[in-house]
Amino acid sequence: MNTTDKINIGIIGGTGYTGKELLKLLVSHPIVGKIDIYAQSTAGHSMLDIFPELTGSMDDIQIKSINNLDYYADLYFTALPHGETLNYIPQLIAEGKKVIDIGGDYRLSSSALYKQWYGFDHTSANLLAEKVYGLADALDDSDYKYDLIANPGCYPTAALLPLIPIVEQYADDIISISTVAYSGVSGAGKSAKAELMMAEMFGNVKAYNLNKHRHEPEITQVLQSAGLGNKPYSFSTHLLPIATGIYSTTIVHLKYDISEADVDKIIQQKYSSAPFVRIRKSPPEIKWVLGTNFCDIHASVGPSRIILTSAIDNLIKGAAGQAVQNMNRLYVLDQTTGLLPLRNFVPLLFEENVKAAL
Amino acid sequence: MNTTDKINIGIIGGTGYTGKELLKLLVSHPIVGKIDIYAQSTAGHSMLDIFPELTGSMDDIQIKSINNLDYYADLYFTALPHGETLNYIPQLIAEGKKVIDIGGDYRLSSSALYKQWYGFDHTSANLLAEKVYGLADALDDSDYKYDLIANPGCYPTAALLPLIPIVEQYADDIISISTVAYSGVSGAGKSAKAELMMAEMFGNVKAYNLNKHRHEPEITQVLQSAGLGNKPYSFSTHLLPIATGIYSTTIVHLKYDISEADVDKIIQQKYSSAPFVRIRKSPPEIKWVLGTNFCDIHASVGPSRIILTSAIDNLIKGAAGQAVQNMNRLYVLDQTTGLLPLRNFVPLLFEENVKAAL
Amino acid sequence: MNTTDKINIGIIGGTGYTGKELLKLLVSHPIVGKIDIYAQSTAGHSMLDIFPELTGSMDDIQIKSINNLDYYADLYFTALPHGETLNYIPQLIAEGKKVIDIGGDYRLSSSALYKQWYGFDHTSANLLAEKVYGLADALDDSDYKYDLIANPGCYPTAALLPLIPIVEQYADDIISISTVAYSGVSGAGKSAKAELMMAEMFGNVKAYNLNKHRHEPEITQVLQSAGLGNKPYSFSTHLLPIATGIYSTTIVHLKYDISEADVDKIIQQKYSSAPFVRIRKSPPEIKWVLGTNFCDIHASVGPSRIILTSAIDNLIKGAAGQAVQNMNRLYVLDQTTGLLPLRNFVPLLFEENVKAAL
Amino acid sequence: MNTTDKINIGIIGGTGYTGKELLKLLVSHPIVGKIDIYAQSTAGHSMLDIFPELTGSMDDIQIKSINNLDYYADLYFTALPHGETLNYIPQLIAEGKKVIDIGGDYRLSSSALYKQWYGFDHTSANLLAEKVYGLADALDDSDYKYDLIANPGCYPTAALLPLIPIVEQYADDIISISTVAYSGVSGAGKSAKAELMMAEMFGNVKAYNLNKHRHEPEITQVLQSAGLGNKPYSFSTHLLPIATGIYSTTIVHLKYDISEADVDKIIQQKYSSAPFVRIRKSPPEIKWVLGTNFCDIHASVGPSRIILTSAIDNLIKGAAGQAVQNMNRLYVLDQTTGLLPLRNFVPLLFEENVKAAL
Repeated sequence: MNTTDKINIGIIGGTGYTGKELLKLLVSHPIVGKIDIYAQSTAGHSMLDIFPELTGSMDDIQIKSINNLDYYADLYFTALPHGETLNYIPQLIAEGKKVIDIGGDYRLSSSALYKQWYGFDHTSANLLAEKVYGLADALDDSDYKYDLIANPGCYPTAALLPLIPIVEQYADDIISISTVAYSGVSGAGKSAKAELMMAEMFGNVKAYNLNKHRHEPEITQVLQSAGLGNKPYSFSTHLLPIATGIYSTTIVHLKYDISEADVDKIIQQKYSSAPFVRIRKSPPEIKWVLGTNFCDIHASVGPSRIILTSAIDNLIKGAAGQAVQNMNRLYVLDQTTGLLPLRNFVPLLFEENVKAAL
Repeated sequence: MNTTDKINIGIIGGTGYTGKELLKLLVSHPIVGKIDIYAQSTAGHSMLDIFPELTGSMDDIQIKSINNLDYYADLYFTALPHGETLNYIPQLIAEGKKVIDIGGDYRLSSSALYKQWYGFDHTSANLLAEKVYGLADALDDSDYKYDLIANPGCYPTAALLPLIPIVEQYADDIISISTVAYSGVSGAGKSAKAELMMAEMFGNVKAYNLNKHRHEPEITQVLQSAGLGNKPYSFSTHLLPIATGIYSTTIVHLKYDISEADVDKIIQQKYSSAPFVRIRKSPPEIKWVLGTNFCDIHASVGPSRIILTSAIDNLIKGAAGQAVQNMNRLYVLDQTTGLLPLRNFVPLLFEENVKAAL
Repeated sequence: MNTTDKINIGIIGGTGYTGKELLKLLVSHPIVGKIDIYAQSTAGHSMLDIFPELTGSMDDIQIKSINNLDYYADLYFTALPHGETLNYIPQLIAEGKKVIDIGGDYRLSSSALYKQWYGFDHTSANLLAEKVYGLADALDDSDYKYDLIANPGCYPTAALLPLIPIVEQYADDIISISTVAYSGVSGAGKSAKAELMMAEMFGNVKAYNLNKHRHEPEITQVLQSAGLGNKPYSFSTHLLPIATGIYSTTIVHLKYDISEADVDKIIQQKYSSAPFVRIRKSPPEIKWVLGTNFCDIHASVGPSRIILTSAIDNLIKGAAGQAVQNMNRLYVLDQTTGLLPLRNFVPLLFEENVKAAL
Repeated sequence: MNTTDKINIGIIGGTGYTGKELLKLLVSHPIVGKIDIYAQSTAGHSMLDIFPELTGSMDDIQIKSINNLDYYADLYFTALPHGETLNYIPQLIAEGKKVIDIGGDYRLSSSALYKQWYGFDHTSANLLAEKVYGLADALDDSDYKYDLIANPGCYPTAALLPLIPIVEQYADDIISISTVAYSGVSGAGKSAKAELMMAEMFGNVKAYNLNKHRHEPEITQVLQSAGLGNKPYSFSTHLLPIATGIYSTTIVHLKYDISEADVDKIIQQKYSSAPFVRIRKSPPEIKWVLGTNFCDIHASVGPSRIILTSAIDNLIKGAAGQAVQNMNRLYVLDQTTGLLPLRNFVPLLFEENVKAAL
């Protein structure tokens, strides 16, 4: 890529909570050029009408109809409901575009899993094998070898980052693994639902989708790749009475005692060059990661077990932020570009080299 | 009334938040007999399906269709949307029933006000003059002279209780009055609305219905009766990011300084026999009144002004609790009956009989 | 017991959140007589000063000094910090009193466990074998054979109730068990702590005391009694950004698939006569149990696993409510007495006498 | 100023919530050079220990002792408790430094007011007349004529911005003004206070400091300058059960009706060149301004009255953000520099001129 150029962006379905965060990241991204937004029901409206909080911070953008999708942009982000993205991505790929899908339509590895967990027949199953599962902090540069990136789900991001190094190292010694995760309600989207009204959820907590959450096969296929084999794994999800944030706790029962020092070393080696994984000395807090692309993780070792905790902002690290991180990696930029506002602002990043690059 | 009998109750439209609180109060009320619930869309369902939290605490009740309203009960509570109660109350009154309307259709004093503030032509305007405006703590026994009680709105209850004695005493000396009130979102009801989703309202506050809230004429007509004349009054409403509770602050600008001792004395005289008005030495807190029928009030006197604060539970004191208090007064019971669970429970009310019974 | 008499109560250390809930339950309990409250730093103060929300609902109580403890009462509730209860209970028992300890000083079965988990030498270890571990819904009448009841911890109550029947039935087939529990901050008490300030905890979540929470040995000793043997168990705790409520999720990995119908049947048989365990058809919600003594439980069966969820009010079912339930059982009263305000209020308990009285 | 230079900064007392926001803004400010932080009790600690959420986003800073204050920096921000700033500012000014005081020690115009409202004798009263009261959006460039800026209080910022143009235009026609403001708890600081614990404030609201809040004389002296004369004004403050945000509602009673169009025009003229005042068509929401330096304002006109609403982030617009805006104006930079991350990031601001400037 010629870094004097900008990347022109199309966002397909960008008027939800994820779309807002994505837009905020992209308008302040130094390499991003023109941004077009395509949607169905909100076509014709303006982004500042939908998100009045952005007024005065950025120029307004008129939303185009998804039915008149052109192929002007270099890179498309898709953020549509399950099963709809399928209608757009094959053509985008055929047109030679890069695509980062923030939805779930390309995360799983086989059409059989889509039939089982999502209930639809996958119409472009060939692409499932020609995509990157973009768990950015766990990937090497060489992993970015396709133009289609399936951006991971919010829960899998939080659950997998601390768990992968443990499984890679201790797979044979594991008895069982259980992930119990809690999410703020923004993960359920913007449309009105009686059970998610403030009057219902204030001060409330409830589990949901037990034994049937679509993020479970997404997690288990990664754990399989990490060597878990047929060891028992379980995943359960809960709603928190807050807007934003995911907290994930994973219990790994082991056949024998291990040392906390060993566990820490393994995790640190795994993420020694991952700028968005912060390894903590105490369990993380959701407030530490809100508004950031960080995943904070911690391991507490007990008798024959490890308790892994992690926290992310579900809309950023769990969606829009990791998508931008994936964009950076796809274009071989520093992966923090546009994602560390306090650090990669002008004085630090651009003082010398960026000025040259632009 | 023959007190050995029970009062049979009909609740018309009782499947919202107010209906739930009303039902809880009535099933534990010592003089209440059979309870029937009539509704439109939820007819045929069971109350425990709608409110699973009540399971195990009370017997289930099947909801009857409002279209098959019989006239079995002695007393009807109506809790319907604006303009719908009109369709039921004239006939109930004609049948000789007592009615406590928790909605707004009979609170105002003239059909002209209904046209102006509610936008409909009142079809039983004669009843507006033959009803009690049931601000229970401010009324005498002799005020309960009609079978129709218009239960006050939640905001008027919170705003008027501290303000009435001040206006009665100082009307001539008042320059202006301004009430600024905040409410939890349960006041907006149970149906799904996008702007009241948890993800929208978490940590949020906003004013709404400025200069057009229907509780304003309800307040001003009472202040007129208290002698305010044409002194300027203003009322404004806001949403709090909580489920339940109203906080009301009223600024009274006066022509000259008055003493805090005088103000306290006036308020205490007014409510010397009102069991549900608690006069506080510091501004009240919403948590003090949640789950209760109390209105906590406080007056802070500054230079040529009084700042009145009050707090209520909007679903209880602001709706169902005051309705039960009105029922008690209508039947000339102790007005706390069924409303002070810690006090009028067995030991106090029935100390003798219970010892015998055990 | 002569049921025409009342039970006189002493509460030792009753000025925290648990003490408030306990007092509210006791003042409305039909068999309770005089209530004395003993405390250290708040001696001389009045309960209504400490809890202004109770004003008008009950008579005030002056707090006595714990240093002048008399032995007037029949039954003592102790709610002191860890290690302090030891200074009072042996003497109370020696004086022939009944004692319900809401703290942790007598929950564990051996002084060795106290040394290991609480860090102190237990000075009345003999009583550890002469107490009832009062998990009321799991006990038979015959279990109440000692005058000392160790009221269970809040987390153990929530975690154990759904888990005990599963362990009793499936112990041999269990691979591992993991409990992940979340609690509102009231569990941490009333004293000022910087990390529990509203500004710190608003919208926040964090794990704490991982692998070292004192409720873990309390749970495991019960699971041992239920037959778990040396199968791996893990327990972890988190803070929710709310005041009240506990949500517990327990993952049971099994050697093979079982049917949800079997699991439901086993749980229903266990609690067929337990009035405070509500078996739900969907995962419970914290809002369903707030302000009640219920524990709502649910089992979701997946491939070779069960996900058990439960919810309680940590101050009531997890402390004061279960303590009153234990009192009822100790005195062979109906165990719901004073605990189901909507049901065992006048009409149900005293329908005949009351009609006469009015 | 030679813009190729950087501004070196000293922050005195920067380890509270305001200090954190200030630091975040300064480290990403393109013209800021070295930042030193001085404190009392936290001297020797590192900022990333105090604010672990900043880890990975910026380089750590070791906190210096306030007792060893040097005069290296060009500009000092002071954020100390009331009465302490007095000990540092006269010397800083004498050394020729620029100072922006985020505390209250120089906001009022006379030492008499300090005696009355703060209770101390002002020891550098001469500086009260040689400072800028830095309500940035209401000032002209020519107002920045002193080296000492008293950064306005959070409440005055929210209350005054919508009110000043109304008073300037309608002073003679005003009957009375009443401001009722609500704030999140972060305004009360980080130190542990029992009444601000999560368990106390969750779902709670309360008024505080009625008729004695120190922000009242700060507001009234500005209204005097705007021409209000001796018209009655009242100010009252409340705590919201959230961490961050202020909502202010001001009722202006007028002698006659005015048109909403006129009011809008007056407000728009006042802020035609103020980048951080957003004039809204409906009442603002706190969520619109969180994390920003905006003050959103709205005017609703009723019969002989105006209801002004405004919302700010109390830590940014109400403290650190306005302080940086004042810094920008003091150094004659574009006043949005470093304050509009979405707009003045690299592509927009620096593409042409900043590259040259650096």
